[in-house]
Amino acid sequence: MLTFPISEYNERLKKTKERMEKAGIDVLLLTDPANMNYITGYDAWSFYVHQMVIIILEEEQPFWIGRGMDAKAARYTTWLDDYHIYPYADDYIQSETKHPMGFVADFLKTQKCEKKTIAVEMDAYYFTAKCYMELKLNLSDAFLIDGTNLVNWVRIIKSENEIKYMKKAADIAGNAMQTAFDTIDVGVRQCDVIANIMYSQVSGTDEFGGDYPSMVPFLPSGEKTDACHLTWSDNPLKQGDPVIIELAGCHQRYHVPLARTVVVDMPNDELNELSKIVKEGINTAIDIVRPGITCEEVEMAWRHVIERYGIVKESRIGYSMGLNYPPDWGEHTASLRPGDLTVLEPNMTFHMIPGIWLDGIGIEISESFRVTESGHELFVDFPQDLYVKPNIRLA
Amino acid sequence: MLTFPISEYNERLKKTKERMEKAGIDVLLLTDPANMNYITGYDAWSFYVHQMVIIILEEEQPFWIGRGMDAKAARYTTWLDDYHIYPYADDYIQSETKHPMGFVADFLKTQKCEKKTIAVEMDAYYFTAKCYMELKLNLSDAFLIDGTNLVNWVRIIKSENEIKYMKKAADIAGNAMQTAFDTIDVGVRQCDVIANIMYSQVSGTDEFGGDYPSMVPFLPSGEKTDACHLTWSDNPLKQGDPVIIELAGCHQRYHVPLARTVVVDMPNDELNELSKIVKEGINTAIDIVRPGITCEEVEMAWRHVIERYGIVKESRIGYSMGLNYPPDWGEHTASLRPGDLTVLEPNMTFHMIPGIWLDGIGIEISESFRVTESGHELFVDFPQDLYVKPNIRLA
Repeated sequence: MLTFPISEYNERLKKTKERMEKAGIDVLLLTDPANMNYITGYDAWSFYVHQMVIIILEEEQPFWIGRGMDAKAARYTTWLDDYHIYPYADDYIQSETKHPMGFVADFLKTQKCEKKTIAVEMDAYYFTAKCYMELKLNLSDAFLIDGTNLVNWVRIIKSENEIKYMKKAADIAGNAMQTAFDTIDVGVRQCDVIANIMYSQVSGTDEFGGDYPSMVPFLPSGEKTDACHLTWSDNPLKQGDPVIIELAGCHQRYHVPLARTVVVDMPNDELNELSKIVKEGINTAIDIVRPGITCEEVEMAWRHVIERYGIVKESRIGYSMGLNYPPDWGEHTASLRPGDLTVLEPNMTFHMIPGIWLDGIGIEISESFRVTESGHELFVDFPQDLYVKPNIRLA
Repeated sequence: MLTFPISEYNERLKKTKERMEKAGIDVLLLTDPANMNYITGYDAWSFYVHQMVIIILEEEQPFWIGRGMDAKAARYTTWLDDYHIYPYADDYIQSETKHPMGFVADFLKTQKCEKKTIAVEMDAYYFTAKCYMELKLNLSDAFLIDGTNLVNWVRIIKSENEIKYMKKAADIAGNAMQTAFDTIDVGVRQCDVIANIMYSQVSGTDEFGGDYPSMVPFLPSGEKTDACHLTWSDNPLKQGDPVIIELAGCHQRYHVPLARTVVVDMPNDELNELSKIVKEGINTAIDIVRPGITCEEVEMAWRHVIERYGIVKESRIGYSMGLNYPPDWGEHTASLRPGDLTVLEPNMTFHMIPGIWLDGIGIEISESFRVTESGHELFVDFPQDLYVKPNIRLA
């Protein structure tokens, strides 16, 4: 069931260990499910209980530690041998008396790591404050330091195999967006639009299936287009409603996100003007993307365009993305915003989503792109224009 | 857009404050999205950035703190006035120099809370180690203590309104399971079964729509039925494959989970025997459910049945559930397992899922139930038997 050749996992591990050595880290504890997957292949919806991958500098294979009932999934999906799959008993689960990090600390002692420099992902979603305190309590001679995003920065440059998966995700994203365009209509309930999008996302194509994206599709509509992370209701769409669609295609946990904006059965001049500005801005910014340019320069190109129209946007306009698990498809490394001096390199992949939300009106037109040797390449070929969806259903 | 009358939110807040007072807590910081929703109504997919609800004992309304672009969602979905919605700037997002908890600490100082006893949810998914360290650093005179699950224990007893939503979720769960039964067939890809299930989960019924469940449907099949949290692939189902389906219906963030097991187009004596034991066990255990019984007594009833057949199951057989957000629909309070002395009360709601996973074979038959005044009530009426799905597609 391995998603990549073992050589690719070894290469990732090598790059990670180089960063560990440089930072003086002997042992790295990974709790970010994307990082666990990246290093070992582990893929299961088990991140709702404590689990981790442990990289010990001088140990050839990492260790997987998790709940007993998930050890089988580790055997199916990782390249680790049985010795490196190390499950804990079920009475550690959501217990008020035992914590899985006590088990992890005991394990680290058996590996003679109790006096080492151990890095933990201090700001990763599933590494709770309690995890840290339990480790600290039980490894009082160790030197615990912050290893947040260490592996994420290795992930930022994709391999050719990873790009192949992302191109499949891109096909799925385009199809799912087309499904949204086809489904949106006067009187159609928001939940039914989403149901169709999700069907398309997961069913995929005849050649390959889709995976669950790390975020559900967003569908803010009507006056609520100014609230970008609202999820759907069962209210029917009305004539004149603007509808923002933000979704991703996902294949083997690799994402390609895409956003577009539709108006239901009625031209909207204000939104149309706004859409032209966003289009000019996003395309101007993407045009300058090539190796050697910094993230903040990309944002500046966008900013210069919208400034001419008197628009100010405070929030970042994009972020590195690819492999991930809920609740986010972003990679938490480079952001397209002022002050981000990350220099673009080939096979970095970004979602540029310069959403504009004014009072009672909002628009999102986004593109996912890859930095190529000489410039850039969009993942999805889908018309950017504000789409006025004619009323088919009731016509 | 409020999901419940304000009086119900006030009642929840009152119960929470009573627990705070009893525990000597002046200020409670909630980061569990379900707890944030429970207290304020806040509902958006924004938990991938740091956010919280702050309850100050002597303050009538709680405060919502989150990302600037999500303040609109707070205005739409909560009962809080504008003064109690307190957004932070976008350059706090995934920054290496600024952390949102610095902003929270500053806010707490403006509220004169810097020397108070402040409880945080130490082991909640989105309260990272870094959150804790930042608060500790910036509130050095405060007394930080653990408030994990304080609100979860208020949530464990559902109101009549909550039960109404769960009954809608139950309808959705039953429909989605029927969809799975209808779709599973020789040659059908796993991803297409899931796509149909998700369509059904989100589209809901003609009367009401479905929400996104906190976990995707699980569909371990073939030899992989022994790995319960594996997600799907695009491999087609084969004749003789056992298939476990675990899913939930969800309405207004309230869940009702359900699991069943199917064999594709071929009787399976071993699985059939196992299914009879599980059925006897689960029904015996549910039969004794009534107010006054403890969680461990329920588990014991199950255990006595399977012991007679020489089967040992280490893991818990169920948990309290209801309102939640990814990655879990469980409530992290009571578990049906030895040592859990929680006494059942009316309107507690559980998912009993005594999955049995032996080497290369597994079965799941589950029920969600409510404790009533005099006994119990199942949420979904769906045949429990191992279902041998006849081959329709290729017949």
